[in-house]
Amino acid sequence: MTTTTVMAGIPATNLSLFRAIRFKVGDPTALVTLRDADGRERRLLIIRDIEMERAKLHARVDSVHCPADFEPASGLSGDRETATAQALAHCLVGKGVSSVRADRSLPLIYAHFIRAAGVSIECDTEMGVLERRAKDAQELAWLREAQAATEDAMRLACETVARAGVARDGTLLLGGASLTAERLRALIDIHLLERGYENPESIVACGAQGADCHDHGHGILRTGEPVIVDIFPRNRKTLYNGDMTRTVVHGVASPLVTRMHAAVIDAKRAAIAAVRAGVTGESVHHATLATLAAHGFSNGQPSVERVPVISHGTGHGIGLEVHEPPLLAGKGPELVVGDVLTVEPGLYAIGVGGVRVEDMVAVTADGCENFNQLQEGLDWR
Amino acid sequence: MTTTTVMAGIPATNLSLFRAIRFKVGDPTALVTLRDADGRERRLLIIRDIEMERAKLHARVDSVHCPADFEPASGLSGDRETATAQALAHCLVGKGVSSVRADRSLPLIYAHFIRAAGVSIECDTEMGVLERRAKDAQELAWLREAQAATEDAMRLACETVARAGVARDGTLLLGGASLTAERLRALIDIHLLERGYENPESIVACGAQGADCHDHGHGILRTGEPVIVDIFPRNRKTLYNGDMTRTVVHGVASPLVTRMHAAVIDAKRAAIAAVRAGVTGESVHHATLATLAAHGFSNGQPSVERVPVISHGTGHGIGLEVHEPPLLAGKGPELVVGDVLTVEPGLYAIGVGGVRVEDMVAVTADGCENFNQLQEGLDWR
Repeated sequence: MTTTTVMAGIPATNLSLFRAIRFKVGDPTALVTLRDADGRERRLLIIRDIEMERAKLHARVDSVHCPADFEPASGLSGDRETATAQALAHCLVGKGVSSVRADRSLPLIYAHFIRAAGVSIECDTEMGVLERRAKDAQELAWLREAQAATEDAMRLACETVARAGVARDGTLLLGGASLTAERLRALIDIHLLERGYENPESIVACGAQGADCHDHGHGILRTGEPVIVDIFPRNRKTLYNGDMTRTVVHGVASPLVTRMHAAVIDAKRAAIAAVRAGVTGESVHHATLATLAAHGFSNGQPSVERVPVISHGTGHGIGLEVHEPPLLAGKGPELVVGDVLTVEPGLYAIGVGGVRVEDMVAVTADGCENFNQLQEGLDWR
Repeated sequence: MTTTTVMAGIPATNLSLFRAIRFKVGDPTALVTLRDADGRERRLLIIRDIEMERAKLHARVDSVHCPADFEPASGLSGDRETATAQALAHCLVGKGVSSVRADRSLPLIYAHFIRAAGVSIECDTEMGVLERRAKDAQELAWLREAQAATEDAMRLACETVARAGVARDGTLLLGGASLTAERLRALIDIHLLERGYENPESIVACGAQGADCHDHGHGILRTGEPVIVDIFPRNRKTLYNGDMTRTVVHGVASPLVTRMHAAVIDAKRAAIAAVRAGVTGESVHHATLATLAAHGFSNGQPSVERVPVISHGTGHGIGLEVHEPPLLAGKGPELVVGDVLTVEPGLYAIGVGGVRVEDMVAVTADGCENFNQLQEGLDWR
């Protein structure tokens, strides 16, 4: 078993690397973990020269170097990523390392230069995966905090829709102008920005738009129609994400939408009741499907006008990325203590739209902790 | 020469893959480019099932598939990234491909499953690099647009500092409260968000903080001290970035800061005058260093109190990422038509702070186009 491991990439976007070193930087970076015969680790970081002082203060490593510290006889490239890969390879040679293991995220250029230097490299496809899934107490606190901020933004969004004015043609109005998906998104974004969150484009999908579960929505919002609001912001300091969905109707929901919503809430309750360490993600999804089936709704892509179906899995892992393992879906693996998951059943019907409600939960030995407290009804007046 | 190439990753963060397909999605995605004997390309995309319809409409590929379309006899993993890598490998086997080339960004898990399926894979470390560097007319337009939005935010920031009130202890005041780096950053962020830009943490580094060229700055801003403002937002639709820096002083700048600023402006002018296709990034940096030397300033890390030095290169390529090849620094390669570059000389002195001024230019056959028009002085009243 090879005991030296390598990771590399740009920590600002390679979140496995960020998690390993807890240091955010936008330039190519490599991490070597050497282990001695007693299993003691020594972690060595190769980073851009002008980041070294900051890295010495903040990165969780034992020593900090720059590419020039490991310049091979043939020299280093003038390209920063290439030079980092060359330096990583030369560092391994200098330490007498003949083989290394790497995680699944390693960019191929690093493997290329490691092999070219005569060091063998093997991809350990599971390295770091379970470690990232099982969140520690600090990570759980950061996710709780992110979800609380997401709830505040959600309340603002749903109350804004529910309390909007309405024109004679059913268009919602705010401050004398049409309330559009774009305007609501801007309100959400600014609210979150002021609280230290960056927010990728939220889903605000009104009426028939909501039938495609990944349509982000656009244009005018209307009374009497379901509006899916799905918000997934990232804390700019911790980098951990929130993710939740509510569905709001201005005015009176139709009987079909009311029935869809009742089924979705029931499915979410059943799925959350099924979550605990040791059960599979697939079995949690089956709890969703069974509950929706009991309400008369089946699984598949929307194809028949006004016939609601669930067209996606029950949820996914979340942490430093909004979508991480495991999936609550077919083939979803056994859950572990510390998995943080979204539970987000939805129903989608052509010509009607969608209803989705999403919470975030943390898996415990005998169940889960739900990070959400916000109401989940259609009426937010 | 192997004619089949592969790329893979998450297009929302792997910008080489995004550029190849012009389709943004947050889930694992793979692209296979097959070439027939006449060199005609056929581009095949493997993407998450629920994104297929959107990809068929928008992705620049010839056919769209999901992992289940290429399920090997051993089945697909319940993990989305693993399943995409398994499907990519099985797709290659099914097409009779025995070897492929991949770009430098390919995550190692894809190479792992390709090799495990008996297909050889070679990293072409230069694949896509020059293509990404040489921006086309559309990309130049997107970068010009991003830089114009950045100039608007910069004017707001510098004028806010210059026109702020001042307390008896020299603290700047805005609306009755201290004007801090954090408050100025929030004004910049909201201004940009309202115009469709997301904005990573800007640098607002006042006085001595500015001596570390990568300190983002914090706390109270003061009269009479240089404030480095460096803003690098991304357009949420195009994903292209702006990047510029100005240095502003509230009130009267010290003679040393005034002298540093004059040298930096002169160095920027000399560097820009040196830019054209065929010259090296290193030679442009030498123009910067020679000009600063003529003003009495040398190259190195700040070490002596009140002695300004330049501690970084002249600039970097920019496009879908804020930092891309080529570098305007030691070993910087020959420039090509369409390279878009920042030119950002700076001087940094312990106990004084920093002065940096940064424009963005596009390389042409006989010079460059400067995307900036904003004034570059210290005084923004």
